[in-house]
Amino acid sequence: MASLEDLAVSAFINILSAIGFLLAFAVLRVQPINARVYYPKLFISGLTSSTRGSSKGVLRFVNFNLWSYVVSFFSWMPEALKKSQTEIIEHAGLDSAIYLRIYVLGLKIFVPLTVSALLVIIPVNVSGGTLLSLKKDVFFNDIDKLSISNISDGSERFWVHLVMAYLFTIWTCYILYMEYCNVAFMRLHFLATQHRRVEQFAVVVRNIPSISGHSITESVDHFFQKNHPEHYLSHQAVYNANGFAKLVRQKERLQNWLDYYQLKFERNPAKKPTGKTGFLGLCGQTTDLIDYYSQRIGILNKRIDSERQRIIKDPKAILPVAFVTFNSRWGAAVCAQTQQSKNPTQWLTEWAPEPRDIYWKNLAIPFVSLSIRRLLISITVFALVFFYMIPITFVQSLANLEGLEKVASFLRPVIELKFIKSFLQGFLPGLALKIFLYILPTVLLIMSKMEGYLSLSAIERRAAAKYYYFMLVNVFLGSIIAGTAFEQLYYFLHLSPTEIPRTIGVSIPMKATFFITYIMVDGWAGIAGEILLLKPLVIYHLKNMFLVKTDRDREKAMDPGSIGLAENLPNLQLYFLLGLVYAVVTPILLPFVLVFFILAFLVYRHQIINVYNQEYESAGAFWPHVHSRIIASLLISQLLLLGLLSTRKAAHSTPLLIILPLLTIWFHKYCKRRFEPAFRNYPLEEAMEKDTLEKASEPNLNLNAYLADAYLHPIFRTFDQVEMEDIRIDKSQTDKVSPQRNESSSTCSPYNEYDHDSSIYQYDHDDSSFYQYDHNSSHLYQYNDHDSSTHYVYHHGI
Amino acid sequence: MASLEDLAVSAFINILSAIGFLLAFAVLRVQPINARVYYPKLFISGLTSSTRGSSKGVLRFVNFNLWSYVVSFFSWMPEALKKSQTEIIEHAGLDSAIYLRIYVLGLKIFVPLTVSALLVIIPVNVSGGTLLSLKKDVFFNDIDKLSISNISDGSERFWVHLVMAYLFTIWTCYILYMEYCNVAFMRLHFLATQHRRVEQFAVVVRNIPSISGHSITESVDHFFQKNHPEHYLSHQAVYNANGFAKLVRQKERLQNWLDYYQLKFERNPAKKPTGKTGFLGLCGQTTDLIDYYSQRIGILNKRIDSERQRIIKDPKAILPVAFVTFNSRWGAAVCAQTQQSKNPTQWLTEWAPEPRDIYWKNLAIPFVSLSIRRLLISITVFALVFFYMIPITFVQSLANLEGLEKVASFLRPVIELKFIKSFLQGFLPGLALKIFLYILPTVLLIMSKMEGYLSLSAIERRAAAKYYYFMLVNVFLGSIIAGTAFEQLYYFLHLSPTEIPRTIGVSIPMKATFFITYIMVDGWAGIAGEILLLKPLVIYHLKNMFLVKTDRDREKAMDPGSIGLAENLPNLQLYFLLGLVYAVVTPILLPFVLVFFILAFLVYRHQIINVYNQEYESAGAFWPHVHSRIIASLLISQLLLLGLLSTRKAAHSTPLLIILPLLTIWFHKYCKRRFEPAFRNYPLEEAMEKDTLEKASEPNLNLNAYLADAYLHPIFRTFDQVEMEDIRIDKSQTDKVSPQRNESSSTCSPYNEYDHDSSIYQYDHDDSSFYQYDHNSSHLYQYNDHDSSTHYVYHHGI
Repeated sequence: MASLEDLAVSAFINILSAIGFLLAFAVLRVQPINARVYYPKLFISGLTSSTRGSSKGVLRFVNFNLWSYVVSFFSWMPEALKKSQTEIIEHAGLDSAIYLRIYVLGLKIFVPLTVSALLVIIPVNVSGGTLLSLKKDVFFNDIDKLSISNISDGSERFWVHLVMAYLFTIWTCYILYMEYCNVAFMRLHFLATQHRRVEQFAVVVRNIPSISGHSITESVDHFFQKNHPEHYLSHQAVYNANGFAKLVRQKERLQNWLDYYQLKFERNPAKKPTGKTGFLGLCGQTTDLIDYYSQRIGILNKRIDSERQRIIKDPKAILPVAFVTFNSRWGAAVCAQTQQSKNPTQWLTEWAPEPRDIYWKNLAIPFVSLSIRRLLISITVFALVFFYMIPITFVQSLANLEGLEKVASFLRPVIELKFIKSFLQGFLPGLALKIFLYILPTVLLIMSKMEGYLSLSAIERRAAAKYYYFMLVNVFLGSIIAGTAFEQLYYFLHLSPTEIPRTIGVSIPMKATFFITYIMVDGWAGIAGEILLLKPLVIYHLKNMFLVKTDRDREKAMDPGSIGLAENLPNLQLYFLLGLVYAVVTPILLPFVLVFFILAFLVYRHQIINVYNQEYESAGAFWPHVHSRIIASLLISQLLLLGLLSTRKAAHSTPLLIILPLLTIWFHKYCKRRFEPAFRNYPLEEAMEKDTLEKASEPNLNLNAYLADAYLHPIFRTFDQVEMEDIRIDKSQTDKVSPQRNESSSTCSPYNEYDHDSSIYQYDHDDSSFYQYDHNSSHLYQYNDHDSSTHYVYHHGI
Repeated sequence: MASLEDLAVSAFINILSAIGFLLAFAVLRVQPINARVYYPKLFISGLTSSTRGSSKGVLRFVNFNLWSYVVSFFSWMPEALKKSQTEIIEHAGLDSAIYLRIYVLGLKIFVPLTVSALLVIIPVNVSGGTLLSLKKDVFFNDIDKLSISNISDGSERFWVHLVMAYLFTIWTCYILYMEYCNVAFMRLHFLATQHRRVEQFAVVVRNIPSISGHSITESVDHFFQKNHPEHYLSHQAVYNANGFAKLVRQKERLQNWLDYYQLKFERNPAKKPTGKTGFLGLCGQTTDLIDYYSQRIGILNKRIDSERQRIIKDPKAILPVAFVTFNSRWGAAVCAQTQQSKNPTQWLTEWAPEPRDIYWKNLAIPFVSLSIRRLLISITVFALVFFYMIPITFVQSLANLEGLEKVASFLRPVIELKFIKSFLQGFLPGLALKIFLYILPTVLLIMSKMEGYLSLSAIERRAAAKYYYFMLVNVFLGSIIAGTAFEQLYYFLHLSPTEIPRTIGVSIPMKATFFITYIMVDGWAGIAGEILLLKPLVIYHLKNMFLVKTDRDREKAMDPGSIGLAENLPNLQLYFLLGLVYAVVTPILLPFVLVFFILAFLVYRHQIINVYNQEYESAGAFWPHVHSRIIASLLISQLLLLGLLSTRKAAHSTPLLIILPLLTIWFHKYCKRRFEPAFRNYPLEEAMEKDTLEKASEPNLNLNAYLADAYLHPIFRTFDQVEMEDIRIDKSQTDKVSPQRNESSSTCSPYNEYDHDSSIYQYDHDDSSFYQYDHNSSHLYQYNDHDSSTHYVYHHGI
């Protein structure tokens, strides 16, 4: 256990590093060269294009105005607070606004908790005086004087803790209820005021049965015309374009290499780039690389061509999935919420996610394999949570010197060098763990993708759930009970159910200093580091230096990503857990949590306004998860307090605590019934209202044209017009569609249909430029720094 | 532990008593006097009315044809088997047919299990020979030679048990899957071929918000006209008639007394019946009882009148619940499955149960109190399951002599008498337990009613679930681990999770003889006793002797009740549990289970054909529960086998068993997704098909008239025509409705609307008859054994 001085030192270091990060941010963010890292959203919305050209020379990269540095250190905070919630919703979407509310929720819960805990529990604890009376004998922690450990066994003072536990639970539930109300209202209001959107009229149908003699398209038409005669409009078949997308990606990779060597050749026309083409460029014949890549791209183009033909011609390329559109929101709402077929596993309907939220790859997963996939993934997650130390220990033992020497005895002389030895021994084992923890969110995201959910938002929510379990077991329980999670599992399986909360409960107060340190490192310095965006900053500048050739490239290089709910939500929920668990036990931890919430709120508000880009809009669909995990934290805190008190001989008060978890579970069930349907279904009342309004205001709206190819796989937007006709939904409508479709599809995806596959790439030695000739448009594109090249590079960046 | 001889004795006694019951049944059922007990369904369907009059005198009561007795002993079994499943569905409804399939399911699962277990496991066990080698030292049970106990620790023979456990699980799952398929198909087929029924067009709406300035009726009309403009037909408001029903019941009770005294007076006209009117007829003034009851009925009639007026006039009598009807099955299916309002707790829609299935009382429960009710009931059920011994022990200790002597010392001389003492000591404690177990199903049914479910079928399913938990904990676990359930709970809470299956698993083989005895007593003799219907037989004859005055009364006295799923399903599921648990451990138990399934199948088939009356038709809605409880039994059996093997040092084979429960859970989840929607929703495809068909065959159908007052509280059928107008759904339609309505309502309820409250009861001293004069119809009803009296008594029997 750390003493109070240790804690002060830790606080000093962490506050210093937090200030250091903020200073670095203050300096870096006013440099114009970093603008694309710290204010990418301004570029995306095109606000800075005019101001950017004004400064010239070195001023374009470095800022010499000293006053701006001073201002910069403080100004971002009021800047971050300036925007109202409505403006944030407009600017960054409802998801971001609701995400920020979680921090406010944290403040709303913990400010009164902190005040009352500091005013009531700490005086009671200090005057409890068990430890004070033992002062001479025991070397004790100063923090413990402020915690429940300071109360003597069987004291009547435990009543205070009991009453506070009740008050805290009631307050937390009250705030949670109000917040759920608010969020549900925000969501409904958002959906109600939203302009017409394609997903309001669309339903995704899975597991369409194959009827012999009928194509999927025919049976979908027949089924919905029969069962939704008054509402069915048309449908968009889904093509299995995964193979096609793979080829396109492959081509893009090759194209990148080609570009690289061509650039090299441009700069140094004397020397043609040559190299080996075998494994990793290490073996094989030495050839002209530009020719080599051009040839490979040519071959690939043919394969892409034939694949495209296959998709269009082969009926097997049409998946048993379709996006069905309706002529009214009411019709779509009805279809999404009802069971269609007598066989409950066929014709499964659910709301279509918005087009940019769709994870297209998963549409090709056969429905029957979904339950097997989910079984396997849940077993894997369980193993990952509880046995994750095993492979790491294995890797560590390999990295261990004895192991390494055994495996590769010829390395012995090198390893025996003192410097290398100490590096390997001191650094490698830790590195293995660090690498694992660093890639964990990505691994969890991939696992969630394999589960077969159709939308990115659902995949992120699932990944967040998995990460939460990992954090709960490995960070929270793992820190309280020493040993790996696997040892804990073994331990718990051999402990009686009543013993578990008792064993953990007893260790809770002892770990307070550890968690305070954790909050300072992860929650203070870590969050201050977040605003610095160190990783994106470095990557951007590296890319800028070596790879960026055009504005389009620069835009790709500055891609800020989205908030990353999969990682941030569980991190946040851990702070709720810590705050609630320690609120009664060691309330001195609460101010540290409060500082985290304030700082993180400011930082993320700033980041959402200036940095992160919105990938999709789920209208706060993650809130039920946030709510239920705070409830889970509440339950954990109650059970641990129960366990702790039961060891402290507080026989009068302990039994009364049993009611608390029961009431909490009941509250959760109530909230679930009360609010959750608002996050799952689209009420008919709402749908009807919007339909009526729209019919009155736009009586001549051509919905069919509006919806025409909203749900077309983005890859097909590269097809040419003639081929598109075959892919597109409603053949009779295409002529009317074309002008409108572009308008509507531009919101869904920035791709314009344009054929780039029948083009020929040519290199002109005279002007050191690379020309692309397009047969369809009979246009020649010069590959260099002018307008059309943007278009070109863009196309390969699909 | 009982030895093999003890078991043989027990088997002998039980087989004897089973044969005794069957003999008694053979004798009693051919007596014409018992016909109404053993063949009530023939009377209900009116089949025996012609044959009954043929025999005369004593022959009407006793059968002297000896040959018929011999035939009777055997003939009921082929009789029971004669009807095909389709005939049973027609005769007794789909629920009964599906209920019988559970026994067939038992046979399908256990016949192959028994054969393979007897052929494989028993030889392996017998040749295992641990116990044989110890023969001299240990006094052991012969049954144990055939069980897994006979295998020595760490033997490789455990592989056989492991493989058999896998095979048994696979076979059980396969049969369960096929059966779920079958039942789901039967249900869908039944719903598809069903004739037009009111519940296909109706949806019950709960929690209708009260909008100021609008009545409930107006807001329902407005809401559904707005949100389901093309499908909404009309609605039936629900009146809070619980108070009214109570008064009617009260009046009925008083009327019974009046009838009784009048009958007495008729038989002995010299003496007017007099008595005291105070508490239990013990105190108060002595008065003329006929006058007294007539007066009280008169007062009650006035109260009933004013209550009726209040219901009609007072807008508060209209509950925020309504039955909404649609002009197509499609419209109703859509409304039942979708969320209506933006506020997810308002306008909650679900399928309307069929009118006879509705539990009217619960419609008046405010929606907000439902979640509190369910919380309280689940706490109570938990307490009942685990602490049920406490109040019984308390009562027993009161009945204990020392306790009684202390409380009432004046009783001491009586208690000290030897005969009374031994009676009290030997009988009372057991009696308290018996009484508790006897009333338990009723208590559970009342608790389920308090949870606020709207349909009798749902209430029965909930009661069955509660009873199942009770059986599982108190009969199954309670028999394996000695001590009360409370002690078990305490024990389990202090045991580690891995220890629990181990501790129970070890005791499993030791309890085999106990469960074999249990099966013989409860499953053989008990089932044979079931066919005798001893309780209904005695009650019927008692009623017939003392109470029955008219044919109508006789019909009421012979009321056979329904199958009683709440009690029978959990009982049945216990046999599945026993069979699956012992299949690998002590397979000799399996033949006993098989005999139970065969016998019970025959007996219940006979009872369903001849005795039990169908209360409602849920189209097999209980099947998902049956399925999931057999899966639960399978899981329990696997965990216990795992626990057992882990103590037997079978280190190679035990870990492989862990996969089994995982696969079973996955199978359950798969089945749930695959089949359960068929039991919850009405697919749109189905609805549309039936709508289309009906539109083609009956284009001029007046649906509004058909549905007019199908969902009127049965109590209102006693209102007169003028008042009915106010209550009925669609005021503009009533004229057209009247002739058709009777036709349709006669299927829902046998009551004809008829005013009996404005009638005056008169007694004529000259012909010793009682006359009732009806102002409305200007008819005089003589209260005696002629036609109209049936009508009269009938009316008071509401």
